[in-house]
Amino acid sequence: MSMEPEFGEFDLIRRFFLKRGAPRRGSGVLLGIGDDAALLELPQGTDLVATVDTVVCGTHFLEGADPRSIGHRAMAVNLSDMAAMGATPAWATLALTLPGVEASWLEEFAAGLLQLGAEHAVELVGGDTTRGPLTVSVQIMGHVPHGTALRRSGAAAGDILAVSGTLGDAAAGLALLKKPAARLTAQAQALIQRFNYPTPRVQLGIAARGVAGAAMDLSDGLVGDLPKLALASGVAAHVAIEKLPLSAAMLDTIGIEQARDWALAGGEDFEMLLAIAPDRFPALKRSADQLNLTLTPIGELRTGAGVTWSLNGNDFVPSVSGYDHFA
Amino acid sequence: MSMEPEFGEFDLIRRFFLKRGAPRRGSGVLLGIGDDAALLELPQGTDLVATVDTVVCGTHFLEGADPRSIGHRAMAVNLSDMAAMGATPAWATLALTLPGVEASWLEEFAAGLLQLGAEHAVELVGGDTTRGPLTVSVQIMGHVPHGTALRRSGAAAGDILAVSGTLGDAAAGLALLKKPAARLTAQAQALIQRFNYPTPRVQLGIAARGVAGAAMDLSDGLVGDLPKLALASGVAAHVAIEKLPLSAAMLDTIGIEQARDWALAGGEDFEMLLAIAPDRFPALKRSADQLNLTLTPIGELRTGAGVTWSLNGNDFVPSVSGYDHFA
Repeated sequence: MSMEPEFGEFDLIRRFFLKRGAPRRGSGVLLGIGDDAALLELPQGTDLVATVDTVVCGTHFLEGADPRSIGHRAMAVNLSDMAAMGATPAWATLALTLPGVEASWLEEFAAGLLQLGAEHAVELVGGDTTRGPLTVSVQIMGHVPHGTALRRSGAAAGDILAVSGTLGDAAAGLALLKKPAARLTAQAQALIQRFNYPTPRVQLGIAARGVAGAAMDLSDGLVGDLPKLALASGVAAHVAIEKLPLSAAMLDTIGIEQARDWALAGGEDFEMLLAIAPDRFPALKRSADQLNLTLTPIGELRTGAGVTWSLNGNDFVPSVSGYDHFA
Repeated sequence: MSMEPEFGEFDLIRRFFLKRGAPRRGSGVLLGIGDDAALLELPQGTDLVATVDTVVCGTHFLEGADPRSIGHRAMAVNLSDMAAMGATPAWATLALTLPGVEASWLEEFAAGLLQLGAEHAVELVGGDTTRGPLTVSVQIMGHVPHGTALRRSGAAAGDILAVSGTLGDAAAGLALLKKPAARLTAQAQALIQRFNYPTPRVQLGIAARGVAGAAMDLSDGLVGDLPKLALASGVAAHVAIEKLPLSAAMLDTIGIEQARDWALAGGEDFEMLLAIAPDRFPALKRSADQLNLTLTPIGELRTGAGVTWSLNGNDFVPSVSGYDHFA
C-alpha cells in the first residue's frame, strides 16, 4: 500500500492546488486543505455569503478549450456572484471531475483558477477530485458587514438601471471561437479574450454596498436576467436599447443589429446590473471611474411589473431570448 | 421570452429543491435560494466548517442506481465530513449536472437529499443546475464553538484508536449489488442498504468534540485512511485486526477472510475513526451508547511513524490497499 499513490486523489489535490506553507495571515483560514473539512474564521460583525457554480464542457466552454481559461472561468463566475452581493470573497472549494490525469492540463487549469483567486485574495481551502466526464464546480464563501448585502429585491420605482462595462462581447467572442479564421484582428482577439477570461466586478460590488438598492450579475443576458430583478423587487423595468454600452471591438467586427442582439441576450458577460436611486448614482459613478470601469444608465425602474424595451423612443420587442442552460 | 421556461435552469431548482415558505427559524438563513448567493448568519463564537464532495456515476454509484440513494449519498458523504470535524452541519449548496430532465428521477433524488438534510437540520441554500454527464457535488457548511474542532492532527502516543459501528458492510453491499441474485436474504438486503444509504455519524462527532484528540471519517477504508491520521498527528498506529467490528450480516454472508479484507480496505463505510486518551474513552463510550452506536477499540497510537497490523498477536500485512478513486 502506498499512502500517496502517484496521481492518487490525495496526491492530485496537493500536487496542483495546495500552496506551500501556511495560509496568508489575515485570511481567516484556521485549517485548509488536508483535513476532513476546512476551518474558517469570519470577521466579526459580518454575514457569510456562499455561492456555487459549475462549468461543464460543451455548455460553458468548447471541447479542447485552453485549460487556463477553464480554470479562470470556474473562479470568475463565482466571484461574479460575490460581486453581485457586494461581498468580499475569501475562500473557495473545488470539486473537480476529470476523465483522467494529464499533468500539463492540470497545471494550466490550476494556474488559471489560482491566479484569479489570488488577485481577489481568495484562498482555496478544500477540494474533491473524482474520475468522470470533465466537470468543474467551485464554491466561494465570502462576507459582508451584517445587513449590507446587495439583494435583487431592493430596487424601487424611480431607480436608475445601470450596467458596468460593455455588453455582448462574450457572445461575440464565442461566435468567433466557433468559426476559426485564418487571421484574427486585434479586435476579434479582444472579444475572444472577453469570453475566455471574464472579469468579475468584485470591487464595484463592494463599492455599491450601501449605495445601490439592488444588484445582480449578468450571466444569462439582460433579456434573461433583468426580469428576475424586476420580479424580486416588485417593480417594472424599462430599457432604452440605444443606451446599451457596446464595445468598439464588437461594433467594428459585426453590424449594429447583431451587436444589439448579443448585448441583449448573449450570456456570460459577467457585468453588473444595478438599480440605484438617482441622487446616489453620481457617487457610484465616481467609484466606477476610480476602478477604470464604465457605469452606464440604460433605463429605469417604474411601478408595475414586467420589462419593456424601446429603441429611440419606439416600442421594441427583443427577437432573442435569455440564455438558459436547459432551454 | 419566457421568464421561467418550463424545465429551465431557474425553474428546475425551484421546482424540486426549493422548500415553500421562509427558512426555518433559527436556521441562520438570511437569504436562501433565488438571489446571486446565499446570505447566512453564523452563531456567535463559532468557526465556520466547510467541505465539498462529489459523487459520480460509475465511481460512487452504479449505472441505473436508485436516484433516492444517490441523493442520500451526496448529502451523507458531506455530513460525514462534518462529523469528522465535530461540527454541527447547517447549510448545503448543490451543484447538479444532468444529461437531461426526468421529473420522476429528480423527485426521487431530491427526496433522498432533502430528507437526510432535514434529519440533521441542514437547509439547502444554493444550487446550480447544468447540462452534462451526471455529477453531483454537495458542499456543506457548519460550525463549531471556536477552537473545538476535531482535527486529524491532535492524536497522541498512548491514545486508544476506536471506530464507530461495523466496518466493511458497504463493500459487501456493493459486491452483492454487482452480481444480483434471484433472491436476496434479509442479511444481504441489510448490507446493500448500508452501501446505498450510509449513515453519517454527526451526533457522535459532536459528542467527541473536546473529548477525542483526533478524528476522521472512513471513506477510503482503514488501510487507506489510518495512515493519514497517523501522519498528520506525527505518531505511529497499531491495529489488532481481530478487534475490527464486523457485522453479523457480513459474517453470515461471506467468509471471515473476505470480511476482514472488506473491513480493512472497503471504502464508503463512513464510520468514524477516533483517537482518544484512555481516561476519556469511557465518557465517549457512554455517549455512543446513548446514540445506540457501538464504539470499538481496535488499537492504539504509539511514538514513531507508520502503521502496523497484527492478527492474534502475530504481525500481519494487509493484502489489500485503500480505496482511491484515481488509483
